[in-house]
Amino acid sequence: MTAALNVPDLIRKKRDGEVHTRAELEALVLGYTRGEVPDYQISAWLMAVYLRGMTPQETADLTRVMAESGEQLDLAGLPRTVDKHSTGGVGDKTSLILTPMLAALGLTVAKMSGRGLAHTGGTIDKLESFPGWTPELSEEQFLAQAREIGLALVGQSRDLAPADGKLYALRDVTATVDCLPLIASSIMSKKLASGAHTVVLDVKVGAGAFMRTLDDGRALARAMVDIGTRASRLVRAVLTDMDTPLGHMAGNSLEVQEALATLRGEGPADLTELCVALAVEALAAYGEDEGQAEARARATLRDGSALAKFRAFVAAQGGDATLVDHPERLDVAPGRAEVTAPSSGFVERVDALAVGRAVLALGGGRERKGEPIDHGVGVELLKKPGEAVQAGQAVLRLYHRGGRGLGAARSLLEAGLSVSETPPSPEPLILDRVN
Amino acid sequence: MTAALNVPDLIRKKRDGEVHTRAELEALVLGYTRGEVPDYQISAWLMAVYLRGMTPQETADLTRVMAESGEQLDLAGLPRTVDKHSTGGVGDKTSLILTPMLAALGLTVAKMSGRGLAHTGGTIDKLESFPGWTPELSEEQFLAQAREIGLALVGQSRDLAPADGKLYALRDVTATVDCLPLIASSIMSKKLASGAHTVVLDVKVGAGAFMRTLDDGRALARAMVDIGTRASRLVRAVLTDMDTPLGHMAGNSLEVQEALATLRGEGPADLTELCVALAVEALAAYGEDEGQAEARARATLRDGSALAKFRAFVAAQGGDATLVDHPERLDVAPGRAEVTAPSSGFVERVDALAVGRAVLALGGGRERKGEPIDHGVGVELLKKPGEAVQAGQAVLRLYHRGGRGLGAARSLLEAGLSVSETPPSPEPLILDRVN
Repeated sequence: MTAALNVPDLIRKKRDGEVHTRAELEALVLGYTRGEVPDYQISAWLMAVYLRGMTPQETADLTRVMAESGEQLDLAGLPRTVDKHSTGGVGDKTSLILTPMLAALGLTVAKMSGRGLAHTGGTIDKLESFPGWTPELSEEQFLAQAREIGLALVGQSRDLAPADGKLYALRDVTATVDCLPLIASSIMSKKLASGAHTVVLDVKVGAGAFMRTLDDGRALARAMVDIGTRASRLVRAVLTDMDTPLGHMAGNSLEVQEALATLRGEGPADLTELCVALAVEALAAYGEDEGQAEARARATLRDGSALAKFRAFVAAQGGDATLVDHPERLDVAPGRAEVTAPSSGFVERVDALAVGRAVLALGGGRERKGEPIDHGVGVELLKKPGEAVQAGQAVLRLYHRGGRGLGAARSLLEAGLSVSETPPSPEPLILDRVN
Repeated sequence: MTAALNVPDLIRKKRDGEVHTRAELEALVLGYTRGEVPDYQISAWLMAVYLRGMTPQETADLTRVMAESGEQLDLAGLPRTVDKHSTGGVGDKTSLILTPMLAALGLTVAKMSGRGLAHTGGTIDKLESFPGWTPELSEEQFLAQAREIGLALVGQSRDLAPADGKLYALRDVTATVDCLPLIASSIMSKKLASGAHTVVLDVKVGAGAFMRTLDDGRALARAMVDIGTRASRLVRAVLTDMDTPLGHMAGNSLEVQEALATLRGEGPADLTELCVALAVEALAAYGEDEGQAEARARATLRDGSALAKFRAFVAAQGGDATLVDHPERLDVAPGRAEVTAPSSGFVERVDALAVGRAVLALGGGRERKGEPIDHGVGVELLKKPGEAVQAGQAVLRLYHRGGRGLGAARSLLEAGLSVSETPPSPEPLILDRVN
């Protein structure tokens, strides 16, 4: 604790709805990170923040204090850097497609990614479907590869914004997780520490997402854009529907196959549109006209330039790049089972959360950090919401390994599927943009 | 933790302004007392209580859970039991006078008292001015003495409402002390565990007290009376002015001398009136007519019956009872010094907190639990607010031992004394009654 600041006084200040200075936030957050301020004081303060809120400037200050609590990547030497973040989703293989698109568009992606936990997937896990591919590069290798190819992807450093990890663990057990300034600062502290000048955010809204309503999603997007602005970064967000999984595939190798198809210009419409929209945001952040940006972004999926970047990227990080052109050779579990429509009509809902949990049940995810996963299992949406089905017709296909977790996965999917007599009103994928 | 109740869910409930059941409060408070619920969860919950409040029923439930967290005295075998509590003050020797009065009135006082800490005095310390007097009795001795004399006084057991001690320590470092339901439940949990059927409360209001305004004091009194009612006890409160010390003396032996004078019917008016008012509340709780109660209470100070009870009580607990009739033999420090009026006029203010701190500086109190104290030092108010003084005339007398702490004590008193040209408007001692 900084000698001049008294922790109970700082808690009292927030309790009474007053505004913290940056020095006060440093005393609390860095003191806690160093183990000098005890958790029982920080949890009382977190509850006061939860109930009293924070001003935009306080939120931005908190974010910077957290970002500066550990290692910070210096990407200043790289041209037109861009990072991407999604607030979590099911079957979200966007990063696999978007990052080579951005590299093909002349931007530099030097990015840290996470692994999956519980029902959400992780980009690192998906990329490990390529035998030999590694997320472990030295900082030198990482920067050199980013400069050469325009794309390098590593696992998230343990020392990146350590204050965030410590605060999150405490919030998790003190009912202080779903608090806008704390969510926004948690996400953005890692983005600031990761060093990119521009960040595009995909804020998921809906049943499978952290933000359940569009209004909540908009507020989170605005808070994160504002933090970026106050830290001299360019942050732009799109709000996307997450009631149903993106594309048709959920599960690591299955998603890689779908991503490769999209990079060849043969992907599902929703996935393609989202990747183009995010690429447009990145280019617009660097001042490009949106019409031109969209045309250039689409072109990378037609002319093979994005696929070429992806191939070079997989090879540079030790992966078997021949699989990029032979996705059928990726390890997909041989077992098959299907969930059928309970009645005739239209697919009304394929619950994203249920699909995520089914993949987990099949062995394609992990409950705890460090657990091994089966890259080959997963779920395919044969029909997506709005499509007509006959009673007994297959709607979902399960890819399993020797029946492991099949019963549980099937039950989850059956509960997450509904068929209605009338077609559901179509919902747009991209709900709003915030910048 | 009770298996069925999840602590983060309980924190969330209070965070969202919902009302706890008694079982939920038990899971939190008893779980914490047993060391099963960690402090960082309880501190988040305390902040939620601070900002969301508690209903009267919740406050009463919390109090009972705390009261039942440890040892509970069973006084059911004693007739017409009564306890007294003061919310802390300076120069407050009321218990020394009131408790023998109550015994003389046919009530039974089997009471636990505390020691002084910081600027507030403690009844146990004052009684230890009688050489040989001990606050340590076995439960059997304690009950037998209460039955025989009507008065027994022991130190507060460590195992009395241990939940309160643990919660208070946590509140003290998390800015959650000054919260009405938490203050009220803290005080009343110990009163409930102490077993008396009737409790009279002296709620101090003013500069030297915890409650700074009459409205705050009234709210606390109402909360405590309500807790008592819901626990089938009779609780009555008087609100008293604590801007200036009661009587003329502050310091252990000096206060005993003043208490003995009051028991002989020769005490200062304010102190006498307060003791009579509290005795009336106790008798009224047992259904006695207030006019008759007042007459009977005053008689105990005229006819020597209260003094006789006090004499018997001191002797029963090993004290030298000859001092009761020879108060001049009590050890009073020989050093004398005076603080004089800075100008002619009327004493406007003798700040109670300043007097309390001066006694502490002279060695008559302790900063930390367990420290020895000098019973002989103290401060005498030669003039009380409203009295006329001449410039240079002595207003306060210090009783010191070899000059120890004299400079500091004098500075405190000089800062706490003000003289005005016009007489201050007289304020009543008893501001209100709540029952």
